[in-house]
Amino acid sequence: MPKACLLLIAVVFATSPMLAQKALPNSQADSQIRKLLEQQVAAWNRHDLEAFMSGYWHSPELTFFSGGTTTKGWEPTIQRYQQKYQANGAAMGKLEFSDLDVVQLAPKAAFATGHWHLTMPDGKHPEGLFTLVLRNFPEGWRIVHDHTSAAP
Amino acid sequence: MPKACLLLIAVVFATSPMLAQKALPNSQADSQIRKLLEQQVAAWNRHDLEAFMSGYWHSPELTFFSGGTTTKGWEPTIQRYQQKYQANGAAMGKLEFSDLDVVQLAPKAAFATGHWHLTMPDGKHPEGLFTLVLRNFPEGWRIVHDHTSAAP
Repeated sequence: MPKACLLLIAVVFATSPMLAQKALPNSQADSQIRKLLEQQVAAWNRHDLEAFMSGYWHSPELTFFSGGTTTKGWEPTIQRYQQKYQANGAAMGKLEFSDLDVVQLAPKAAFATGHWHLTMPDGKHPEGLFTLVLRNFPEGWRIVHDHTSAAP
Repeated sequence: MPKACLLLIAVVFATSPMLAQKALPNSQADSQIRKLLEQQVAAWNRHDLEAFMSGYWHSPELTFFSGGTTTKGWEPTIQRYQQKYQANGAAMGKLEFSDLDVVQLAPKAAFATGHWHLTMPDGKHPEGLFTLVLRNFPEGWRIVHDHTSAAP
């Protein structure tokens, strides 16, 4: 085979856009997503909703399911959080995640599941499960869909 | 450029495994997933749990979240359904989905969301939301994670 052919094939492969989609090592996506969620928990626990919400896709296409209701869009989602956790008499409490599992579906897609637990100032302990669908954007992994449910 | 080179490049591309990952048109994945879910609803409504469960990944890695509890694996999931909907005095009722939305994340990954509604023989109407994470296997799209919650 002429050397020029081999070189050309090498160049074609090296510049193929498909190669750009090569999967991240699972551990890298896993640790990036776990870090994002740790940052969210820390933001929640210093009662910084804006920082908490920076883990979500800043898009009108963000979807958020909780307590039987659906919310669409980043702005309506932060408004829902403000109303539920920062309005008169409301409190954010202390948030903890456990049993966190991250599954990478594709180079730029993953989902994370786990158990959430709140310790409220009034002594209540709401808790339940969450499923997060995440995409890897140029700015990093962001939650594009959140389904949070409370244990009955 | 020698013709042999062009031919070789063509062969290399045509046989590249990366080409196999080329994205389906969104509409194709969307219609395949909607069809899968329609088949599940039809199976449920003829009280055929095995056929209903064929929409799920037949793997010990399948995860199912409902009512604050997590179930792992296809076998434990069908057992949970049998216990909840086919044991003494239980009924499956008539299942309907609405507001179904399918979002493709990658050539072989998607998630689907919607509203579920059951009409039970005793006149009750449990309902709520679901989030399904799906992967496209050689045998077709299958649910790899299900988070179903009931409206309070």
